[in-house]
Amino acid sequence: MRRFDTRDAGFEAAFDAYLNERRGQPAEVDAAAAEIIEGVRTGGLAALLDYTRRFDRADLTEQSIRVSAAEIEAGAADCAEDVRQAIAFAAERIRAYHERQRPADARFVDEAGVELGWRWTPLEAVGVYVPGGRAAYPSTVLMNAVPAKVAGVGRIAMVTPPGKLQPAVLAAAKAAGVTEIWRVGGAHACAALAYGAGPIRPVDKIVGPGNAFVTAAKRRLYGVVGIDALAGPSEIVVVADAANNPDWIAADLLSQAEHDPAAQSILITDDAAFAAEVEQAVDRQLAVLATGEDARASWRDHGAVILSPLDASPGLVDRIAPEHVEFAVDAPERLADRVRHAGAIFMGRHTPEAIGDYVAGSNHVLPTSRAARFSSGLSIYDFIKRTSIVKCDPASFAILGPPTVALAEAEGLPAHARSASIRLNPRA
Amino acid sequence: MRRFDTRDAGFEAAFDAYLNERRGQPAEVDAAAAEIIEGVRTGGLAALLDYTRRFDRADLTEQSIRVSAAEIEAGAADCAEDVRQAIAFAAERIRAYHERQRPADARFVDEAGVELGWRWTPLEAVGVYVPGGRAAYPSTVLMNAVPAKVAGVGRIAMVTPPGKLQPAVLAAAKAAGVTEIWRVGGAHACAALAYGAGPIRPVDKIVGPGNAFVTAAKRRLYGVVGIDALAGPSEIVVVADAANNPDWIAADLLSQAEHDPAAQSILITDDAAFAAEVEQAVDRQLAVLATGEDARASWRDHGAVILSPLDASPGLVDRIAPEHVEFAVDAPERLADRVRHAGAIFMGRHTPEAIGDYVAGSNHVLPTSRAARFSSGLSIYDFIKRTSIVKCDPASFAILGPPTVALAEAEGLPAHARSASIRLNPRA
Repeated sequence: MRRFDTRDAGFEAAFDAYLNERRGQPAEVDAAAAEIIEGVRTGGLAALLDYTRRFDRADLTEQSIRVSAAEIEAGAADCAEDVRQAIAFAAERIRAYHERQRPADARFVDEAGVELGWRWTPLEAVGVYVPGGRAAYPSTVLMNAVPAKVAGVGRIAMVTPPGKLQPAVLAAAKAAGVTEIWRVGGAHACAALAYGAGPIRPVDKIVGPGNAFVTAAKRRLYGVVGIDALAGPSEIVVVADAANNPDWIAADLLSQAEHDPAAQSILITDDAAFAAEVEQAVDRQLAVLATGEDARASWRDHGAVILSPLDASPGLVDRIAPEHVEFAVDAPERLADRVRHAGAIFMGRHTPEAIGDYVAGSNHVLPTSRAARFSSGLSIYDFIKRTSIVKCDPASFAILGPPTVALAEAEGLPAHARSASIRLNPRA
Repeated sequence: MRRFDTRDAGFEAAFDAYLNERRGQPAEVDAAAAEIIEGVRTGGLAALLDYTRRFDRADLTEQSIRVSAAEIEAGAADCAEDVRQAIAFAAERIRAYHERQRPADARFVDEAGVELGWRWTPLEAVGVYVPGGRAAYPSTVLMNAVPAKVAGVGRIAMVTPPGKLQPAVLAAAKAAGVTEIWRVGGAHACAALAYGAGPIRPVDKIVGPGNAFVTAAKRRLYGVVGIDALAGPSEIVVVADAANNPDWIAADLLSQAEHDPAAQSILITDDAAFAAEVEQAVDRQLAVLATGEDARASWRDHGAVILSPLDASPGLVDRIAPEHVEFAVDAPERLADRVRHAGAIFMGRHTPEAIGDYVAGSNHVLPTSRAARFSSGLSIYDFIKRTSIVKCDPASFAILGPPTVALAEAEGLPAHARSASIRLNPRA
């Protein structure tokens, strides 16, 4: 692990360098994704099945590519009862939270007599990518599909690489109301969702996490379909004073570190002795952690920042712009309310970030790699879009027409000007 | 121009083929943009000035790259009075419309006793790209900068290729409160905004239209910064019955056609004779139109669809998912309210689309190339982002903790589980 102290002369430069230590996407991955996309776009189902044989070592057909309703039922029935209940609890809380995000339509008449407004409508069809293998998470299904359902999306097509489907993933699909599941993954699955392939009809947007090929494919397909944000490694900042139990804080730091060797866990504390206690607690917990290998690799590159007083922590958090930040202090609002750039804030000593991954109700798909400077977590807004509405009558048009003509002429767009002037002077 | 008739046997296939006739981005443009971005990222200001010499034939320095306050004042003073007044009128209407879009923060305590909510905050810094030459439009400045100001963005950095700055563009910058303008364009300007270059400090998001290099650069930079949608050629669908003046409808179709040879203008009418009258009116207007060359090239590829009754038009509009649609009929709500996929709807016989380009107040940056299926026009939402908030006390944590442990264990994430269980059983 590393240690930064804001009182050191070299802190600013060292911390900036640390924040900019970011891994680019290899060009080979992008080129491969481009080729696969073109293959599926032009080759359709045959190409999709071919890529699935080559990359996923699975021999599927037009029939077996779809997970049947019976398989979903049987798999979901295999899910352990406590997990099934936790899924139902989480789904209901996610539904309730996102239901509150629904924005209102607007329609009003302004002083000029112009009727204006906007109307929100749901997307028609959305694809949800769910990674396979160890990273096949029921929470991925819930966090992506439940907000889509709340928004009113008519069709949700889930894709996941071939292989044994986790009972918990199928139970989550069932809880979220997902009935269309395809056994395909990678860039080829994204291309199939965007362009359609055999029985897989095209969708309007693709959401959900994936490996480097999936991320590259989503970036390439942006425009053909909508995409959610490009997911990077998980991040947590824990702002904690010395009144905390170091074991609790160590557990929180490791809860992100275990995701990925590239995950970023940072402790901000005003007490160097407490930082040392947390480091020791991390080492103790790492020794017995089943996911210790990834967590240890991650923790080696990150660590603690000593900052006193913690009153200055919101400014440092903004520089990091992390996916998650915990304020494990008394009266956390005092600090939390001053943060501008973070995906989600967890307040107080009894709100570990993992609550937000599963059951808080808020979405766990959040901006990473400092994208919280300019973007938000997944929400109902990802599954609806807005149409502007304008209506003039002859009287209000008489007010708006002349400045329209003036601006259109100034821009050298005579047909724009004419579409207004012809209605102002029908003889012209 | 073309003519489609929904009663023809081959209509479905022919119209689908027409909708899919879309121009891809050449791979060379993308590769060139990638190289330029890398050049500016590693070479900073020197590289930026070098690209500006090579591509824009302008020899600038660290000083002359910025448009001075005196130049902005002098340029704005040169703006014709009627245009200046129209700019002020438009700016105020855009401000008022976008002010109504501001979403509320939320904070509530649910039945489990968990405090939840979210908070919206503005982006800190935004770059606005304004094309040069003939396409240097004051309305571009207003439509991008005014919503950013309404959102509370602290810093707006405008970039525009070197060359004579149009007085109307500078007047619009002044009206929008833009004081930071840089004389740079192309992919190199986008890279300078994303990574910073000499006196140009980095921004958090880049908005505004540009040529193919700018669009390719924005797609490449997505993730480093936020971007608005990738703009394509303009589009209009006019749904009109035979009670319209064919000259008015022809003017509306040409108002989009004049933008670009690749623009898409489509008339939907239930009356073949009226379609013929509109076609003749288009030809008459084209003959005297200063922008006739582009408009003629565009109109050659598009035209009329005969559809009866017009009651079926919302379904056809949804298939096209156009940037703009006009309903030039009586009681336009009857049709307009059933449209799901369109950037903006203009209702009635006195609402030409050009109103929306300038002074309606709604934003003229709208989804093109069928992106209205999954995205919205520019709005205050482009300049704010949302942070989720979660706060448990010991009692509510006791409710949320156990299902968190169950799900984390099911997902094979023991450190996630431990961050919850350690607070449930402090001895564990």
